[in-house]
Amino acid sequence: MSTDSLPSWRPGPTKEAVVEFVTAVTDDGSPDYVAEVDRVAVFDNDGTLSTEMPLYTQLAFAFDRAAALGKAATMEELKAGGLPAVLELVKLTHGSISTDDFEAVVQEWAASSTHARFERLYTSLVYQPMLELLAYLKANGFSCWIFSGGGVDFMRGWAPEVFGIDQHQIIGSTGTVTFELADDGKPRLMKGADLAVLDDGPQKPISIHQHVGRRPIFAAGNTDGDLPMLQWTDGSPHRSFGLVVHHTDGEREYAYDVDPLLGSGTEAVLAGAAEHDWSVVDMATDWDTIYNQEQP
Amino acid sequence: MSTDSLPSWRPGPTKEAVVEFVTAVTDDGSPDYVAEVDRVAVFDNDGTLSTEMPLYTQLAFAFDRAAALGKAATMEELKAGGLPAVLELVKLTHGSISTDDFEAVVQEWAASSTHARFERLYTSLVYQPMLELLAYLKANGFSCWIFSGGGVDFMRGWAPEVFGIDQHQIIGSTGTVTFELADDGKPRLMKGADLAVLDDGPQKPISIHQHVGRRPIFAAGNTDGDLPMLQWTDGSPHRSFGLVVHHTDGEREYAYDVDPLLGSGTEAVLAGAAEHDWSVVDMATDWDTIYNQEQP
Repeated sequence: MSTDSLPSWRPGPTKEAVVEFVTAVTDDGSPDYVAEVDRVAVFDNDGTLSTEMPLYTQLAFAFDRAAALGKAATMEELKAGGLPAVLELVKLTHGSISTDDFEAVVQEWAASSTHARFERLYTSLVYQPMLELLAYLKANGFSCWIFSGGGVDFMRGWAPEVFGIDQHQIIGSTGTVTFELADDGKPRLMKGADLAVLDDGPQKPISIHQHVGRRPIFAAGNTDGDLPMLQWTDGSPHRSFGLVVHHTDGEREYAYDVDPLLGSGTEAVLAGAAEHDWSVVDMATDWDTIYNQEQP
Repeated sequence: MSTDSLPSWRPGPTKEAVVEFVTAVTDDGSPDYVAEVDRVAVFDNDGTLSTEMPLYTQLAFAFDRAAALGKAATMEELKAGGLPAVLELVKLTHGSISTDDFEAVVQEWAASSTHARFERLYTSLVYQPMLELLAYLKANGFSCWIFSGGGVDFMRGWAPEVFGIDQHQIIGSTGTVTFELADDGKPRLMKGADLAVLDDGPQKPISIHQHVGRRPIFAAGNTDGDLPMLQWTDGSPHRSFGLVVHHTDGEREYAYDVDPLLGSGTEAVLAGAAEHDWSVVDMATDWDTIYNQEQP
């Protein structure tokens, strides 16, 4: 009799597939055995590990910080202005600040800002089943990495504690950064105004190559922007596993197929799942719990 | 009585300073104690961990590969052409190849190519005292990272085995990379022709921020291109240690103050060492052995 490592996952084909895969790649008598060093798992964040509706957590932060800086913006302005308007808001709220100061700003925001509908900290709107999956993989010798489209400095301000993942395994988009000696002679890194790397779509496998240097055997995502990461993982010479989180639960979370801001859909990633036999999480039926009952 | 973890280091102030620092930051009764998670050590490679004379190892690889591709180049041509000529050679020898194929090419070269003067594999011309230092730091809870000006895909082809450092902790310069599905539908990463990030000078602390996400407390380099990395480490809120490897041994290695190709010097980094009280390795007097007597 074995203990259930995934208690928030309801019995069914998705849970069974995950457990069967992990069992096979960790059994050194199995033809599917994978040495521990190659057990690399990669996760998208927004919509895969945590709620991204009605707006990305980082966007909620940007709105709050813009208001605090006396330059409040609205979702309507942003939708009308498209990507240029988003980049302008990012520039205002993420640029011209040292990395140390920015980290402090993010940590203060994360410790106090709550989601209107759920009345919980944004950073507690992480999926309990995915926290269990991360722990289960780690207990089985996997190294777990996050490759987010969100900004890396924002993510690292709160995600290490929430997910139990070290800074260096949390990757995201980056802006320009400059190294300088301040007037007091102390070195600092200043966040600039421009986007350098948008960690989405085909950039995700490139970032994985640059940061991990090994091909993953497990990948989880939820939108078309995650498709290249899932494809790259699927092409591993080892047995691999793809997981697509499908947002089907309008009562307990949100039911949608288009992301909240830039309109990235799920058509291609769901087609990829069908083609490559990846597992699709139907949140309404596969997950018994969405969020931890007690806020972390 | 304690065992000597650094037998190839001769007794003297440099060795004493290293041991005193490591003892202080790992003693939880010491005011200088640093938690294990923050014990990050960063190393330059060429000239710091391994011999870079009379030409960078990667340049030796590039010449050999250019010749194999029927487009042999010479050091004289390169010196006359400066940085543009170097980038052209890199483009020819490192571009338009998949990351998987490039890894195989590097590994084959590394396993068979020898340095003319020492008649040893290039990859065995690594400093025995620095190998001992890496092992000593790791045994004391440090995570050791390499931030090389060399190309990351080249470095990762041989350095993990030689230094006992995992791929993801070996960072270097990067070229453009594209993700594509080949004709057979299999995903691959193709190395492009252009330089994307030159991991030298002020880029080193930026790369450290992006890849480690924590400020180092130990840094080692040998040229002015390593100065910002040493300064960034020096600015840590914790006690920190800077080490500069000075090439003073023309008999057993090389005595020089200017790097072999692009002319980066040592004036600024030695001045920084004096200003900040970093330790300077005088290779002729501080090191009892330069290379492991048996090739690894």
